[in-house]
Amino acid sequence: MFVIITYDVGEKRVGKVCKKLREYLDWTQNSVFEGEITIGKYTQCMADLSNIVDKDTDSIYVYEVKNPRNIKKVIHGREKNPFDLFL
Amino acid sequence: MFVIITYDVGEKRVGKVCKKLREYLDWTQNSVFEGEITIGKYTQCMADLSNIVDKDTDSIYVYEVKNPRNIKKVIHGREKNPFDLFL
Repeated sequence: MFVIITYDVGEKRVGKVCKKLREYLDWTQNSVFEGEITIGKYTQCMADLSNIVDKDTDSIYVYEVKNPRNIKKVIHGREKNPFDLFL
Repeated sequence: MFVIITYDVGEKRVGKVCKKLREYLDWTQNSVFEGEITIGKYTQCMADLSNIVDKDTDSIYVYEVKNPRNIKKVIHGREKNPFDLFL
């Protein structure tokens, strides 16, 4: 399936969450990742993240899209690329 | 249509972009908004945003979803609500 994942986590955990998501998905911009992922890998990804985040204060939003053909991404302004993540 | 909008803009423009998007959509978390919007309002929203952002450095990503039934939102951890925006 195709997923878009956004996170809003405490500053101390941002790096860890970002690093973990990069193992599974493509970074889009800011705190947004997206990509095709199998149910198995998605389950593993969520399990990994649950060990990092503070469930009382942090949040991870996942948009699960049944078929990527149902979604269209339009970029206004500058397209960020993976290298921006390291600037 | 249903849209998810995320933005990555210069610090000086974050407030303005956020305020503008709140006129059209529901705030989800961090720099993410979502909601049902007509083509007309969406066009207007994008025109308004283009007057705020710096096209060379800022970016607005829009995921357009044909039918909201094709997308499922799953929240892990704490669900943010609109009041968080003012904290």
